[in-house]
Amino acid sequence: MDYENLDPQDWNAMRRLAHQVTDAAIEHTRDVRNRPVWREMPDSIRIGFTSRVPEDPTPLSQIVAEVNDTVMAYPMGNIHPRFWAWYMGTSNVTGALADFMAAIQGSNLGGGNHAAALMDGQVVQWLREMIGLPESTSGSLVSGGSVANLIGLTVARNRHAGCDVREEGVAAMPKPLRYYGSDQLHSCHQQAMETLGLGNHALVRVPSKSDMSMDVDVLRSLVAQHRSEGLRPACVIATAGTVNTGAIDDLESIAEFCEEQGLSFHVDGCIGALIAIAPNNRWRVAGIERADSVALDPHKWLHAPFEVGCALVRDKSAHLKAFSLSPEYLKPAARGLAAAPFLHDYGIQTSRGFRALKVWMSLREHGVKKFGRLIDQDIAKAAYLSALIEQATQLRLLFPTSINIVCFLFDPGGRSKDELKALNTEIMLRLQEEGTAVLSDTTVHASHCLRAAINNHRTLPEDLHLLVAETLRIGNSLIGDG
Amino acid sequence: MDYENLDPQDWNAMRRLAHQVTDAAIEHTRDVRNRPVWREMPDSIRIGFTSRVPEDPTPLSQIVAEVNDTVMAYPMGNIHPRFWAWYMGTSNVTGALADFMAAIQGSNLGGGNHAAALMDGQVVQWLREMIGLPESTSGSLVSGGSVANLIGLTVARNRHAGCDVREEGVAAMPKPLRYYGSDQLHSCHQQAMETLGLGNHALVRVPSKSDMSMDVDVLRSLVAQHRSEGLRPACVIATAGTVNTGAIDDLESIAEFCEEQGLSFHVDGCIGALIAIAPNNRWRVAGIERADSVALDPHKWLHAPFEVGCALVRDKSAHLKAFSLSPEYLKPAARGLAAAPFLHDYGIQTSRGFRALKVWMSLREHGVKKFGRLIDQDIAKAAYLSALIEQATQLRLLFPTSINIVCFLFDPGGRSKDELKALNTEIMLRLQEEGTAVLSDTTVHASHCLRAAINNHRTLPEDLHLLVAETLRIGNSLIGDG
Ligand SMILES: Cc1ncc(COP(=O)(O)O)c(C=O)c1O
Ligand SMILES: Cc1ncc(COP(=O)(O)O)c(C=O)c1O
Repeated sequence: MDYENLDPQDWNAMRRLAHQVTDAAIEHTRDVRNRPVWREMPDSIRIGFTSRVPEDPTPLSQIVAEVNDTVMAYPMGNIHPRFWAWYMGTSNVTGALADFMAAIQGSNLGGGNHAAALMDGQVVQWLREMIGLPESTSGSLVSGGSVANLIGLTVARNRHAGCDVREEGVAAMPKPLRYYGSDQLHSCHQQAMETLGLGNHALVRVPSKSDMSMDVDVLRSLVAQHRSEGLRPACVIATAGTVNTGAIDDLESIAEFCEEQGLSFHVDGCIGALIAIAPNNRWRVAGIERADSVALDPHKWLHAPFEVGCALVRDKSAHLKAFSLSPEYLKPAARGLAAAPFLHDYGIQTSRGFRALKVWMSLREHGVKKFGRLIDQDIAKAAYLSALIEQATQLRLLFPTSINIVCFLFDPGGRSKDELKALNTEIMLRLQEEGTAVLSDTTVHASHCLRAAINNHRTLPEDLHLLVAETLRIGNSLIGDG
Repeated sequence: MDYENLDPQDWNAMRRLAHQVTDAAIEHTRDVRNRPVWREMPDSIRIGFTSRVPEDPTPLSQIVAEVNDTVMAYPMGNIHPRFWAWYMGTSNVTGALADFMAAIQGSNLGGGNHAAALMDGQVVQWLREMIGLPESTSGSLVSGGSVANLIGLTVARNRHAGCDVREEGVAAMPKPLRYYGSDQLHSCHQQAMETLGLGNHALVRVPSKSDMSMDVDVLRSLVAQHRSEGLRPACVIATAGTVNTGAIDDLESIAEFCEEQGLSFHVDGCIGALIAIAPNNRWRVAGIERADSVALDPHKWLHAPFEVGCALVRDKSAHLKAFSLSPEYLKPAARGLAAAPFLHDYGIQTSRGFRALKVWMSLREHGVKKFGRLIDQDIAKAAYLSALIEQATQLRLLFPTSINIVCFLFDPGGRSKDELKALNTEIMLRLQEEGTAVLSDTTVHASHCLRAAINNHRTLPEDLHLLVAETLRIGNSLIGDG
């Protein structure tokens, strides 16, 4: 029998090709500023993605060339200095090299007694240390903030269920649970409540105040009301950095309230938890270290390439009790590869990739202090943009910018809300189509606006000037005043 | 203000370093056979993973050297030709290059109108095509088989809930649901039932027959019994390739039964779904194309580096109805980056990495026919090992090998079950510690055994000969007969 495998037939050719790939990648990153941030794909590109599964081989060098011409040439754009849509990180070359090494090494982080597994645990501890939770905290690197939040909400469900909910299910709970978050909560919490079988109706949206943070007085009265109705208040989900406007709930007050009431205190810190390392702004998230669980996202403000989120749980035994399927009598093996606790006991995956390496290498390369400065810097950039907007008479800031999310409008005066929405949407689309900048839009307390989330280590003041100038130019040309 | 970012200060130095990294990676893969498959970490290595978060920078070249000395030097071992533990893929260089390019490009596959998003959809369609589901099937690339199964089980829950379970939760269901899988089911299904709020008690373990496949007669009578008890049978989870022994449930009979009974037919094909592309063995999974949902794992038999699993759902609208949070009136934007359906509407993540590229590039490079041959080849290797075991008088095959998982014992005669377990465990540990081979062990129908899962494109017959010879040598030395 003639054995085939997936290894290169010619290792030297593979080596040369790998050099070409890395050279192109480094140029791609170095020159990103010279390219349009986004551009529409022509049909000739689209059509390539409709072909059926390839039966026969193609030379790898040709495949790499195709990937360069399609995938690399028509990106989302989020590594570009003028990408500020939704909320995501901007990647980095070191993180990409780490993903390469992790894939070459190939370890499965489901567990085992090997170096990658130790590093996985170390990175969890570093993240814990960065936001100030106690050393006894457990955690897990996961696919992103959505699953990190799901993990915190699961631990809270099981703590308050009042029955063996893992065995008997949610229907056996003596009282229906209630969770509380502000009306600015990220949609992944609704998803989590649905997944967990608690239902969206069990997630109470507490109104936000004019600064978009949760109204804790209303929270207090809702919890009292629900208790009197025979429901069981279980968990408050505080947001440290809302996706709409970057608002940070009053973590100290909520922590206090949860302690007083015996509620779980979960912090969705996907956007803002890491502000805890930023010297000028860390005061904003004071109280996060009191959380029972925290979701945070190294693929946002640490700019790790997708994906890496992290769930932290203060009570390690509650964490394990929510997810572990290894019976307690099944101790890790005494020796060998299985002589280590299973990492998959802390979440919903079994096989797990080696997400830790990209975070570890970047933190080592730059040091955590620099990441703290970069967070302060993004917040300063947002303040800078906000000032530019306030100076421009045709632009209007929707409200004071708190962290790195700027909500604004081109408003030349005399237009209805609907007209303004149409006008600003068109500006947003032209900025994208011209390759100048990518913003997104949102609606906050019934007001539509453009939204720039400056989570971007490459953005410079000149980029913000260009955004303002082009928004004005396009806006004025649309109203026939250009 | 002096702006800092995460880009290299010296692009040429980064380029040289990247060449060093790829050269080392290619040598690491090329020479894997010359290294021990696994080895114990000395304390000097362990201690490095206990340091606190680094405050200050370190030169990247030094970091890379450290990673080589620690992470790369003390791997799990699963890319080695003699790693056959648990069940995982063996990675490949092309997949690692793809992960690098994906991270450099940085796109978020939560959605958007860009090339990576189109490729993500294309890979889902290729996988669908490979196992024969209809073109109308939807799917999603996920973190692995565990989440792929969770997605299928969620769609089934919501279909049979009898209420608006997303809104009202599991407690509002008029009848308790029941799911059915064999007693050989992977533990991720228990995890999923717990997560979904249905509870482990709602997952009925149907006894397996002597070939370890589900006893469909017992299934039939359990479903009838549960109906008569006022429960609502909802879903049968058939396994195509159990983790213990590789058994494949009778998919045709179960499909038939599910149609007749109006049950959802979910196939856990993490191990075996892709046998559908293997010319000599595809008959084993006939009927998989009738499934309502399938979980499969490109990071197993396509050897994609971790992580990439795939959930397929025959009824796209049921799939969307289970997960989408985008209200139906919210159409994708008419133009620009948001002019595409959201990919996060098909699962529990919001941000999503670009998992598709590694699968796409490998399938293009080798062609799907070769992957089919490699699957046949792994099954042939397992048959070869089984024959070697049957020829050795001191070794005993626990039962006939069906696909690529071989369960066996060193049994020199005259020992109790407990003695055999201790003896075989010691053999397994010594094989690991001597760096010869990594097996795992398991217990099947109350019999402990060693287990070799040959999902390994690098394994050669000589590796299997060595395994047999070393097992005999160690076994005999342990019983004082060496
Ligand atoms: C506040 C908040 N929470 C949770 C998430 C979900 O995180 P991920 O996309 O990593 O799943 C996001 C994503 O932007 C977010 O902004
Ligand atoms: C039969 C079966 N189902 C599901 C899984 C879980 O897959 P993953 O580890 O990719 O989550 C496995 C893993 O080995 C498996 O063997």
